[in-house]
Amino acid sequence: MTKFVYNFHEGDKDMKDLLGGKGANLAEMTKMGLPVPPGFTITTDACREYLNKGLVPPELETEVTQALRDVEDTLGRQLGDAEDPLLVSVRSGAKFSMPGMMETVLNIGLNDSSVNGLAKVSGDERFAWDSYRRLIQMFGKTVLDVDGDLFADALEDLKKERGVTADVDLTADDLKGLVETFKKIVQDATGDPFPQDPRKQMDMGIEAVFRSWNTERAHIYRRRERIPHDLGTAVNICTMVFGNMGETSGTGVCFTRDPSSGDSGVYGDYLMNAQGEDVVAGIRNTLPLSALKDTNRPVYDELRAIMRKLETHYKDLCDIEFTIERGKLWMLQTRVGKRTAGAAFRVASQLIDEKLITPDEALERVTGAQLTQLMFPQFDDSASRTLLTRAMAASPGAAVGQIAFDNAAAIRMAHEGTPCILVRRETNPEDLPGMVAAEGVLTARGGKTSHAAVVARGMGKTCVCGAEELDVDLKNRTLRVGDRVFGEGHVISIDGTTGEVFDGKVEVVDSPVTTYLSHGLEAGLKAAGDDEDMADLVRSVDRLLTHADEVRRLEVRTNADTPEDTERALGYGAQGIGLCRTEHMFLGERRALIERVILAEDDLAERAEAMEALVPLQKGDFLQMLELMDGKPMTVRLIDPPLHEFLPDLTELEVKVAVAEALHKDGPELAKDKRMLTAVRKMHEANPMLGLRGVRLGLYLPGLFALQIRALVEAAAELKAKGKDPRPEVMVPLVGSIRELQLVRDEALEIIKETEEKYGTELNIPIGCMVELPRAALTAEDLALEADFFSFGTNDLTQTTWGFSRDDVEGAFFGLYTEEGVFGVSPFETIDTHGVGRLVKLGVKKGRSAKPDMKMGICGEHGGDPDSVHFFHKVGLNYVSCSPFRVPVARLEAGRAAVMSED
Amino acid sequence: MTKFVYNFHEGDKDMKDLLGGKGANLAEMTKMGLPVPPGFTITTDACREYLNKGLVPPELETEVTQALRDVEDTLGRQLGDAEDPLLVSVRSGAKFSMPGMMETVLNIGLNDSSVNGLAKVSGDERFAWDSYRRLIQMFGKTVLDVDGDLFADALEDLKKERGVTADVDLTADDLKGLVETFKKIVQDATGDPFPQDPRKQMDMGIEAVFRSWNTERAHIYRRRERIPHDLGTAVNICTMVFGNMGETSGTGVCFTRDPSSGDSGVYGDYLMNAQGEDVVAGIRNTLPLSALKDTNRPVYDELRAIMRKLETHYKDLCDIEFTIERGKLWMLQTRVGKRTAGAAFRVASQLIDEKLITPDEALERVTGAQLTQLMFPQFDDSASRTLLTRAMAASPGAAVGQIAFDNAAAIRMAHEGTPCILVRRETNPEDLPGMVAAEGVLTARGGKTSHAAVVARGMGKTCVCGAEELDVDLKNRTLRVGDRVFGEGHVISIDGTTGEVFDGKVEVVDSPVTTYLSHGLEAGLKAAGDDEDMADLVRSVDRLLTHADEVRRLEVRTNADTPEDTERALGYGAQGIGLCRTEHMFLGERRALIERVILAEDDLAERAEAMEALVPLQKGDFLQMLELMDGKPMTVRLIDPPLHEFLPDLTELEVKVAVAEALHKDGPELAKDKRMLTAVRKMHEANPMLGLRGVRLGLYLPGLFALQIRALVEAAAELKAKGKDPRPEVMVPLVGSIRELQLVRDEALEIIKETEEKYGTELNIPIGCMVELPRAALTAEDLALEADFFSFGTNDLTQTTWGFSRDDVEGAFFGLYTEEGVFGVSPFETIDTHGVGRLVKLGVKKGRSAKPDMKMGICGEHGGDPDSVHFFHKVGLNYVSCSPFRVPVARLEAGRAAVMSED
Repeated sequence: MTKFVYNFHEGDKDMKDLLGGKGANLAEMTKMGLPVPPGFTITTDACREYLNKGLVPPELETEVTQALRDVEDTLGRQLGDAEDPLLVSVRSGAKFSMPGMMETVLNIGLNDSSVNGLAKVSGDERFAWDSYRRLIQMFGKTVLDVDGDLFADALEDLKKERGVTADVDLTADDLKGLVETFKKIVQDATGDPFPQDPRKQMDMGIEAVFRSWNTERAHIYRRRERIPHDLGTAVNICTMVFGNMGETSGTGVCFTRDPSSGDSGVYGDYLMNAQGEDVVAGIRNTLPLSALKDTNRPVYDELRAIMRKLETHYKDLCDIEFTIERGKLWMLQTRVGKRTAGAAFRVASQLIDEKLITPDEALERVTGAQLTQLMFPQFDDSASRTLLTRAMAASPGAAVGQIAFDNAAAIRMAHEGTPCILVRRETNPEDLPGMVAAEGVLTARGGKTSHAAVVARGMGKTCVCGAEELDVDLKNRTLRVGDRVFGEGHVISIDGTTGEVFDGKVEVVDSPVTTYLSHGLEAGLKAAGDDEDMADLVRSVDRLLTHADEVRRLEVRTNADTPEDTERALGYGAQGIGLCRTEHMFLGERRALIERVILAEDDLAERAEAMEALVPLQKGDFLQMLELMDGKPMTVRLIDPPLHEFLPDLTELEVKVAVAEALHKDGPELAKDKRMLTAVRKMHEANPMLGLRGVRLGLYLPGLFALQIRALVEAAAELKAKGKDPRPEVMVPLVGSIRELQLVRDEALEIIKETEEKYGTELNIPIGCMVELPRAALTAEDLALEADFFSFGTNDLTQTTWGFSRDDVEGAFFGLYTEEGVFGVSPFETIDTHGVGRLVKLGVKKGRSAKPDMKMGICGEHGGDPDSVHFFHKVGLNYVSCSPFRVPVARLEAGRAAVMSED
Repeated sequence: MTKFVYNFHEGDKDMKDLLGGKGANLAEMTKMGLPVPPGFTITTDACREYLNKGLVPPELETEVTQALRDVEDTLGRQLGDAEDPLLVSVRSGAKFSMPGMMETVLNIGLNDSSVNGLAKVSGDERFAWDSYRRLIQMFGKTVLDVDGDLFADALEDLKKERGVTADVDLTADDLKGLVETFKKIVQDATGDPFPQDPRKQMDMGIEAVFRSWNTERAHIYRRRERIPHDLGTAVNICTMVFGNMGETSGTGVCFTRDPSSGDSGVYGDYLMNAQGEDVVAGIRNTLPLSALKDTNRPVYDELRAIMRKLETHYKDLCDIEFTIERGKLWMLQTRVGKRTAGAAFRVASQLIDEKLITPDEALERVTGAQLTQLMFPQFDDSASRTLLTRAMAASPGAAVGQIAFDNAAAIRMAHEGTPCILVRRETNPEDLPGMVAAEGVLTARGGKTSHAAVVARGMGKTCVCGAEELDVDLKNRTLRVGDRVFGEGHVISIDGTTGEVFDGKVEVVDSPVTTYLSHGLEAGLKAAGDDEDMADLVRSVDRLLTHADEVRRLEVRTNADTPEDTERALGYGAQGIGLCRTEHMFLGERRALIERVILAEDDLAERAEAMEALVPLQKGDFLQMLELMDGKPMTVRLIDPPLHEFLPDLTELEVKVAVAEALHKDGPELAKDKRMLTAVRKMHEANPMLGLRGVRLGLYLPGLFALQIRALVEAAAELKAKGKDPRPEVMVPLVGSIRELQLVRDEALEIIKETEEKYGTELNIPIGCMVELPRAALTAEDLALEADFFSFGTNDLTQTTWGFSRDDVEGAFFGLYTEEGVFGVSPFETIDTHGVGRLVKLGVKKGRSAKPDMKMGICGEHGGDPDSVHFFHKVGLNYVSCSPFRVPVARLEAGRAAVMSED
């Protein structure tokens, strides 16, 4: 038979699944011999049984009786006894801390008769009646679902009547009257009297905790936090101890280190003659824990000893709740304490020094998300500000600058040394120069994975997007927000961590952690200056990141298309380029050449000529980047997007031509536009994402891939001739079948061979492919025969596996889908392990079945996402590739994955 | 050690993999004791070995020597012996008959000396020298790669010189001189003399056959026919027998039944004093086989006896090559003969009657493709015609009618009883009424799976599409082809089987098979009239189809959206509706309501009202169809396409508004257009295929699915009240996760419950989902928990698995992809078993792992494709659903799959 009830001395901290977090820790402290008031925990099994059957299991009642008797025997008192009543608290306690559930009912066991016993035993009638009215109030509200305001209002009315302001100024008689009022409120609201039977109070409390697991608030919370709905909660029954039994009693909360800064040394607050809720409510000013040293040295010393013991035992910063009842210290709760990002790194490093944990364990104490937080500059909290609007926090950081409405303006301002914010309705690849020039990007449209957001995150640039209240008027070059209108050059500030947009300049604080990450320890320490905490933080980050690098199995590469990106990524510790997109190399002035290629159509000579002209330009790009990457791999993806992306927009051109014709504006421009329109119409696709792109485009337009491959291979040959060590890799996008890959590979091998002969050198250039279509993963054992490596493209793989394009759906219904629990988090942010992840796993398995040592990586947005990195470690990839700014996070998480995974 | 050479008496007909088709059949006939000239076969193993290593394996040479010696010993003659030379032929013979490879070299063994021996032994000097010159000519051309025209020209020159027209008029001396000329041609072209060593001739011939496996022509052929490249060919070495040794010799080809009509009784041609090539070349008129009865009764009788023996042995119509050498009959080849579609059915039925095969075996002798051919009307072969252009044969059949440029014209003509052809640049759902009204559809754009093609096939309507030479000018209502211009009403004829478009009327022949399929045997026989062959064909089709229905495990349902489709499909034997699309029910006059729903946006009351107005209309549709389907399941798919498909096209509207504004045409219409434009812009999607559609739309726009479900459920309840047996099933499209399905299912269950209470009845309505996204297949074990059935949507699954949309890619690069061997046939025609099929298999397996008895079907285009039907049988689906016209094919193929599969 399942055991439903555990006395505190029966459990331990590893039984969280069964006893919940609170119960497991109470048991652990009991086991450690710390002064925990006796009690017991009802398991999550019991809760699940209750939820399934809608009935409290009869065995549970028997076991509770038994456990309660144990406690009563230990203390020699009985629940609700009229002379010397044992009182208990009933608290929920799930595996994961969960606001939204019923929390606590104190003073269970008091009734019209035992209240007198309590008064006698405590020698404090006022205390006894105050405890009783608190019970009725809490019980009424949380167990009986009575409107809490009814009790609060009655209390206020009474105080007014008595002409006092504080609760403590009410007398015992006042409180006796209040108890009567409260009982009447319960009777009126529920139709039943307040229950006098102590055991019934307890049973009702237990059932209320069970029920609270399924409230709507709890559901919503779990969905958001991705906590399974079927865990259930435990219930803790604990003997009451009182911090409000006069001036030798008190209650407090403390941490074994400062959870905010990470400084070692105690940190906490307490209040004498108070109950826990008084501390939390903030009605009275709390005292710092150090004050206890002076008022009650023995208790203070005992508490400090317990704190040291707990920290040594838990090997981590602990968060503690305690109560002093007439000079006797009781521990009511402990857990590993929450902390800020900075504190996490500093504490982990301290614990290594104190030899409480190993460096491996220390890695488990910090997260990539924390490191990300430490990397972004932030607005100075103390600075004043005027909020204009709040939108999507697309790429964290704080940026201040003049409004720039286009590339030209942004570049001009950057040239003049004036920081600027690029403000656009939305961005596209053409806006790249402006984004590079600007401090941050603000758009009126688009979600967290819009072009602006993705590119900005890639560049580590602050971005707020989808600010629908903004009206960007390009013609008049104004930005309107409500009834305020700003012109170009007006200064605004944007907070990419909160999504806030401010009028004017808000002061920004830089992060020395970022300085360290990009320029090394010395530079980081210098940036920290006199701030000793910051310097210690920089040293701690360095220590943990260095350890992560030592233990991780995943290589970390970067997605970089430009020399600037490449340099930044190398600074951040990238070990190679996992994705160099080449289409960006066709923008700007080179666009004219691509247009020539497209418009040439069947004029093969013209097309060949236009392509030929692109070779030296593209070679120049590759020379620069290969030189920077000397000795490190650089994976170059052949052109991927459909060609019409390089032509004008169909609708805009149709409108232009139609209007010109309607107004009879004949002339060479119209003629030119009409020629272009014919080409654009021909290339137009209903679903460009699923159109003529990637390898399909390469095969369809002979010579296109060849020109890119030639440019790359010749660049490598030239560098090699100069004694460098270039390591390019050719990557074919959007492959769905082995034959496609074969055709491109044959062509590439031919070019490599020719170039080797021409330069009299030997080049070892791997040729691989993206695995970004379901079919590629499903037939990976075939592809492996023609591929030297795989790179999983989880962006496209997510789009095709789910059948939605992120351009179209994120804004439209991701909000709804998150709300409805279809996903916990966007599958474009964290890899959908259950669906897309299965394809990745299948691809790895099938690919390795054909080529056991095949190198495999991932170069989608997920490469820098902590959860995803752990998944990629687990499925056995060799590397992740992510945007430069995410490289440190990926390094840290790859290290964490290595120490945390079971293999 | 591998055995590379098999004497004819060592093999049999089941060894086609090793001996090729020809070799296996020669061996079989030898085994049967038929008069086959002695010889041997070199295996495909030897060919593969040669192709891999580039060298004739040394063991092969030894084995050939041994086999040759056997033949020589049997006949008591030696290859190329000067006195009484043994001559042989060398022929290729792969597993599958394969034009494009080297075929035959005859008379191997002749040289300057043995030619005299042959002359002496045959007593015919002219014959000997003619044989020698034939050897040099064939050997030169096929083995030595000498330009064949050189020989032909020399022969012509000689005939001119001698003043004769026929080869036979050349004398022995003439031919001696010709042999010298031919030898010089060889010497000049190759630099080497014509080889005199008989064994060297043979070895060179063998190697030439091996090599011919890898010619470009052979490669292209194999790719097109999906024959693996690694099979290799066998080589047959056979003793020469001569049909040109005077008037008692001859050669011929015959079939054991008429391969054209299927009539029983012999059928063949022969020529006396001729070699096989003379029969094929058609220089001299052949005689019908019956003539042989009179000229050489013993040989005729022997041949007839052999034919009966072969047919009994092969249990099928055989195709035979024979030679008579001086009165002695020799069998040179046999195989199961090719036949027309009609003959296939008739012969299969005859063979059952003759108790040569079982009905199960008969099913293996016919195909769905043949049945399809029998169903389409065709142009009368003898009718005259003027070709206008040739384009894609999108949906077979022959249609004649007046040009109609739009719905209105087509409907008007149909009303007037004038057949018409709908001619459009391309079609979309709006053109449906016109397509229904027209005899056939002709479009200037779009491929085999364009809207026009798919819908036309679905309706069994003739369609030619992608006729790029057509210029459809809607404004002037003209159709231009080259310099000819036709107005509306001009008569054209289109052939959907060949893709031809003709000017004027071409006579059409109707198919009684179709009459039988839709109206039963009696009607079919009546349609056949006096045509006994046709009547027999109708009976044969009925017999085989009836047997298919008895043995098949797959149910055959239909995709039908209208009562008309439904009736047609029922006629064709559909057992249910597997896909009833509901979006078509929102077209026409109801479009205004859908526009209201969309334009209502946040005006919930307005939206609800518009939706409410749709309920009775949609209920009316369902009532009609459910009544027709009484007692049979009808799966209704909730609305799938994105809503903007119901709004005007963005670009057109942008142009309209911009032009009106440019011309200052203010007014209520512009204002209305601008309001609409705002909505259209808002709903516009970059990739509608991957946008807000299917279940996503249903969840996004609350009430939309509900209105459809309510209409369906109420229709069912009303019919049930009338004592009918409605069996609707609700199908949710585009599901990717269990949660989506759960939400819709909960809503549907609620509506069903309400309706049951309202009507006081009990409805048993299964709720299932499409599996048309990779994620659905990958997580099918989850979906199965919430789904009562699965229907695989292999169209969308193909699009997402390959990552291409058929709208965009089919025209653009499917030609290239077929050419380059990426696929043998479009994956939209036949399911890509290696990629998409793996997902289907996975979906079935995972789904059944959760729900072992779950009903699963498929409702994509593939449901009526023969190869795909076999695949679906094999993976264990319960039903296929296809367009009405394909129902008979699916029934037949499902039966074939059942008897042909191994389970």
